[in-house]
Amino acid sequence: MDIYADVKALCESARSASKSIALANETQKNKLLQRLAELLCENATTIIEANAIDLSAAESNGIPKAMLDRLMLNEVRIKGIADSLISVAALDDPIGKGEVWSRPSGITLRRIRVPLGVVGIIYEARPNVTVDSAALCLKTGNAVVLRGGKEAINTNKALVSVIKSALVECGFNSDAVGLIQSTDRESANALMSMRGLVDVLIPRGGKGLINACVQNSKVPVIETGAGNCHLYVDEYADLNKALKVAVNAKCSRPSVCNAIETVLVHSSVVESFLPMMAEAFSAYNVDIRGCDRVRSIISANVATDEDFATEFDDYIVSVGVVDSLDEAISHINKYSTGHSEAIITENMKNADEFSSRIDSVAVYVNASTRFTDGGEFGFGAEIGISTQKLHVRGPMGLMALTTEKYLIVGDGAVR
Amino acid sequence: MDIYADVKALCESARSASKSIALANETQKNKLLQRLAELLCENATTIIEANAIDLSAAESNGIPKAMLDRLMLNEVRIKGIADSLISVAALDDPIGKGEVWSRPSGITLRRIRVPLGVVGIIYEARPNVTVDSAALCLKTGNAVVLRGGKEAINTNKALVSVIKSALVECGFNSDAVGLIQSTDRESANALMSMRGLVDVLIPRGGKGLINACVQNSKVPVIETGAGNCHLYVDEYADLNKALKVAVNAKCSRPSVCNAIETVLVHSSVVESFLPMMAEAFSAYNVDIRGCDRVRSIISANVATDEDFATEFDDYIVSVGVVDSLDEAISHINKYSTGHSEAIITENMKNADEFSSRIDSVAVYVNASTRFTDGGEFGFGAEIGISTQKLHVRGPMGLMALTTEKYLIVGDGAVR
Repeated sequence: MDIYADVKALCESARSASKSIALANETQKNKLLQRLAELLCENATTIIEANAIDLSAAESNGIPKAMLDRLMLNEVRIKGIADSLISVAALDDPIGKGEVWSRPSGITLRRIRVPLGVVGIIYEARPNVTVDSAALCLKTGNAVVLRGGKEAINTNKALVSVIKSALVECGFNSDAVGLIQSTDRESANALMSMRGLVDVLIPRGGKGLINACVQNSKVPVIETGAGNCHLYVDEYADLNKALKVAVNAKCSRPSVCNAIETVLVHSSVVESFLPMMAEAFSAYNVDIRGCDRVRSIISANVATDEDFATEFDDYIVSVGVVDSLDEAISHINKYSTGHSEAIITENMKNADEFSSRIDSVAVYVNASTRFTDGGEFGFGAEIGISTQKLHVRGPMGLMALTTEKYLIVGDGAVR
Repeated sequence: MDIYADVKALCESARSASKSIALANETQKNKLLQRLAELLCENATTIIEANAIDLSAAESNGIPKAMLDRLMLNEVRIKGIADSLISVAALDDPIGKGEVWSRPSGITLRRIRVPLGVVGIIYEARPNVTVDSAALCLKTGNAVVLRGGKEAINTNKALVSVIKSALVECGFNSDAVGLIQSTDRESANALMSMRGLVDVLIPRGGKGLINACVQNSKVPVIETGAGNCHLYVDEYADLNKALKVAVNAKCSRPSVCNAIETVLVHSSVVESFLPMMAEAFSAYNVDIRGCDRVRSIISANVATDEDFATEFDDYIVSVGVVDSLDEAISHINKYSTGHSEAIITENMKNADEFSSRIDSVAVYVNASTRFTDGGEFGFGAEIGISTQKLHVRGPMGLMALTTEKYLIVGDGAVR
């Protein structure tokens, strides 16, 4: 079997199907998403059966429990996925929106949003990503080629089969959503080489996956998700706010990218703040790793330089002491992945300096980094959080799946 | 000499300098551009002397005359470059602009435009690109690392020395504009590997250069410029408009990317239109290459499949006959580089179908493709024309050199 040829054929079919989905109007696309929501619920049993095969294989392969949980589908979760399709249908379609202007040369220009074309998604064993990604791409008139993790392959086949039924029922070409059947590394590499057939590649998953795409892809990549986020407690901090934000940002959901990994505390408040924080964190059994100055105040493990550079995604936190705002900013710009950082301060000058000098997607003043999320920002659904600077930065809503096009009308106008 | 280490050191210095130029306000940046314009004129003699060294080396290396002309600087051209700096200074600075909204969770969000950081430019022997690129990057608060062609190295050194003087005089870090001294292929490859230090790479030049960047760069690339542009003369065309546009789009400046390379004519008008076009083109000695049906009507060379795929950038045109709008659209979407295409028609239904189904940056109805240009679109200066879909598509003005950032304020808000 030639994996490269299979992937290429799938991408060619998707490219061809992208031409018609691109021309669909908002009503047609919303009907498709609504019908897909119905079909998912109607086919729940089939999907759960396929999922059971994946789950039992994963279990016998000794997959960690947290991963098993992310892989698992039941009726409630399928209903949840169906509900999210209804939410996507309710979002404004950016396609065709734009502005018009005229020029003295006699031309009238219209700049409108158009679909990207074909979107490639490489992801791990989270079956909800299969449906979410397809829904966001279809809503914006894009075709999509999916390459999911091997642990979820049977579930993904069942889901994509339902998606294809919905496409056909609603009069669309079913090739608009393609699933790569091989889960070998070779199939991911093949997808990364489909320049000209695939317009953008969005890796959704861990650092290793994202890095592999960035290093190898010939298709433009949108990097998502790496989050080594910081909280800085300034000398002018309201320590009650600092405590509330620290607990929320570290402990409410440590596995996600917008949780904090490091707390930096100004030396003038360190003696009052650290004991408060240590006590609050102890309720969550947080492993606190600190520098010598921290360890002279509270009981903590030693924080290495590597700890400060690590996204733990767990109940672990690195804690450092700084003697100035400038030192805090330098530390953050050195170690951060550019995702989200917060300052707690009542001093507006310090807040402004922090906000302008920190080079991250989202900079918070007296608020938790956990807000960096498409839903919390008011964008509706999101297909990931971009931590790069090109095309889109931060939570990627529907707009991120579009590009622009100029339509120009004259009456024989020449230059 | 270790070229990689030199390039890396230059990029590190630029990254460090980017932090301060990013915080400059519009007045400071405009003063810098105005002072640079003055200094270029004051130092015209030195620049012209350096340029003379490049010109004489180029001449003895047998460089084509057109290229020599692009390389040559004189007082008038330097004045022209200085004038364009004044125009850039007059453009609105997008940095810091944005919108504000609040959420029920108690946070207020501000999304603002911020500089990309460090921009890398790889280009050929056009010294005006050195100053233009630096000006557009500095105006948007970016540092820039320039890697020009070897034919212009002495000129570029002289120009960058003047730019650095202007930076220092205006209180900026002179590392904000860096010139890579080596013009070996290795230095371009080194720049392409500076992920993390350089935020975007913009190749400005021919197909070979752009392709090398796309294939090899680890830094995100914005592709510019390839233009295999088409004119389609519909069965409902006003043939006088068609003629006027064909002559303008092919003959007014054939060397540029927005000139047409192919004319497709609907079979119902081919017998009346082709002789008109052939006569008009003969005044410019255009080499017409046609299919058999074309050659049965006018005298023309044979057009091969490769001709239809070629951006001639010269007084050469491929001509084809089609039997339907659908056939014209299919031909264009197959051969086009996605730059600019035009239809001549009085039938609005055909115009709309052409506009929506052609997947190019700019689609014209009854107007010349030559309008695809930042100035003609009303954007002021441009740093190139993007023919890709991510980040920016079409003429790239100042906005293309920016990204966004979210500043979020709460009062101890948690999620």
